[in-house]
Amino acid sequence: MRLALDAMGGDHAPEMVVRGAELAIERQPDLELVMVGDSARIQPLIDTTTRLKSADLRIIHTDKAVLPSDKPSIALRSGRDSSMRLAINLVADGEADGIVSAGNTGALMAMSKIALKMVPQIDRPAIASFFPTMRGESCMLDLGANVECDAENLVQFALMGEVFARIVAGLERPTVGLLNVGSEEQKGHAEVREAAAVLREIKGHFDFKGFVEGDDITAGTVDVIVTDGFSGNIALKTAEGTSRMMTHFLRHAFKSTLLAKIGYLLCRPGIEHVRQRMDPRRYNGAVFLGVNGIAVKSHGGTDELGFANAIGVAADMARYGFIDRVMEELETVGPIQASLSTNDKAAAS
Amino acid sequence: MRLALDAMGGDHAPEMVVRGAELAIERQPDLELVMVGDSARIQPLIDTTTRLKSADLRIIHTDKAVLPSDKPSIALRSGRDSSMRLAINLVADGEADGIVSAGNTGALMAMSKIALKMVPQIDRPAIASFFPTMRGESCMLDLGANVECDAENLVQFALMGEVFARIVAGLERPTVGLLNVGSEEQKGHAEVREAAAVLREIKGHFDFKGFVEGDDITAGTVDVIVTDGFSGNIALKTAEGTSRMMTHFLRHAFKSTLLAKIGYLLCRPGIEHVRQRMDPRRYNGAVFLGVNGIAVKSHGGTDELGFANAIGVAADMARYGFIDRVMEELETVGPIQASLSTNDKAAAS
Repeated sequence: MRLALDAMGGDHAPEMVVRGAELAIERQPDLELVMVGDSARIQPLIDTTTRLKSADLRIIHTDKAVLPSDKPSIALRSGRDSSMRLAINLVADGEADGIVSAGNTGALMAMSKIALKMVPQIDRPAIASFFPTMRGESCMLDLGANVECDAENLVQFALMGEVFARIVAGLERPTVGLLNVGSEEQKGHAEVREAAAVLREIKGHFDFKGFVEGDDITAGTVDVIVTDGFSGNIALKTAEGTSRMMTHFLRHAFKSTLLAKIGYLLCRPGIEHVRQRMDPRRYNGAVFLGVNGIAVKSHGGTDELGFANAIGVAADMARYGFIDRVMEELETVGPIQASLSTNDKAAAS
Repeated sequence: MRLALDAMGGDHAPEMVVRGAELAIERQPDLELVMVGDSARIQPLIDTTTRLKSADLRIIHTDKAVLPSDKPSIALRSGRDSSMRLAINLVADGEADGIVSAGNTGALMAMSKIALKMVPQIDRPAIASFFPTMRGESCMLDLGANVECDAENLVQFALMGEVFARIVAGLERPTVGLLNVGSEEQKGHAEVREAAAVLREIKGHFDFKGFVEGDDITAGTVDVIVTDGFSGNIALKTAEGTSRMMTHFLRHAFKSTLLAKIGYLLCRPGIEHVRQRMDPRRYNGAVFLGVNGIAVKSHGGTDELGFANAIGVAADMARYGFIDRVMEELETVGPIQASLSTNDKAAAS
């Protein structure tokens, strides 16, 4: 199994990418890696490591890179020789089983769609990622690729998200919920209600639990939370912001008096455990589900640990044949459009 | 100033309502209160207090109440003699300056719209509430009244939210932001982009800061966050859920070892301060902005402290003439529809 890495993407590239690659190889020694980027900067970094020097690793040189500020349309036109594009092309050409980049999200999405195309029957890609919950971890999609989604998109996201959770979290029968403003059938706008009707119908194939609400996300009520990219992005960032606020308040509390400082030292192992459990690096690696190839976006500001985790997500998806499994799933379920129109008729009659 | 209280709404009514009323009178002794509900249950509770016995307080008896499970349509039809409806009618008839209820949200919203009507030029009511941020507190609307909103609704929400923050938080010139998935002008769906264009145009009247993202909510980037009821409800509940998860993890951490337990005791004053700062009771009182009368919804599960705070929100709105101020604001800004169509033309050309 071979993964292509955009060695120039991310705030701390290429150092972070090389060190992340080393960590990933340490965890999965059979991994083959291709690093795309400035070899004059990458090679010396590799030479400082012991694991990568002896690993199955190739460098493809380019001195061009997509900038964080590049608009997707600009990156598509003028980034044909960029490290990001060349890395994606390796997947398109069957030279690699997946690509990981910590670069510009919009550019990565646009390039992945163009170079890898879409999985047949899937109309739009969705961004999916895992996050911590009270019960363990769950995944949510779409986190921001599509600000507007119709019922069919949501159903497709549910199918792909379920396969993603099966493969990456190793769940046998992940539960799926649709994000809404209430749990009753009549709640929400037409798109979520229609999507729910279809999902209830094809429920034999997987464990659809109906509507879930915002507080179900961290409660871990379901393994897969499906929503449009507008609400999903807002939910994700609201959760991040809330966690940041509480951390800020607590840090202040632990420093407020000498006694509190001593108390903090005594509590530290437990608090450190909480910090680790919620560590964003642990959940790093947002996946573009629906493109016909494995493309994983690492957070731009992450470090080697986070990047190694993103590589791990791509490796799991490739190893367990994510794309094939999604296609099988779509095959089994049959045309969603047909269910949708049956439901429309049922609703009209 | 006189407020009507639905004495039978809420999980712990009427006890919680009577004790909340006592607290509110303690804070604002000039407050007149009318309690609507079962006098056989309310009067004995009042008799146990010293403050309410001597306060300007009237009971209007009814033994009917809206149930938490009643659908709004049912409550409207069969709840004409309910404590909730009679309390709202007092506002409609000019007998009270505002109503506070901890009962069924949907029923309260439906009855308020029917009995109080809408403020002229406002099409739909929005639910608004304050919440804690890193910088203090901000308010957000709509929190769930409208799952779909057009640009005009969002602009109206912005105008009302700004007046609400001026009056209830006492801010001279509150900053306003529109919730979106990015801060750039081209981000988001048509409704938020159009609303932003109009708000930029009428910016002379108030301090519009453009788009904000999910993590700006708790960062306190702006004083008023405007969004549709779908995203607003999800953001609110996601924040609640995240805070609940962190509290759950931390509680576990503080109990994990004997040393941690001792450490917790030493940190407790600081942690207690954080708990107070984020206490939902402190932010209790969601307001139905846009109905032509002051209607405040208390959380159903709150206690007397939370209910007293909801009474405080209604009192502030009545005291500082919220409805009149909103109408002045609308007058000053002029027809929003005109700005919208100008923008459409500009966008089309």
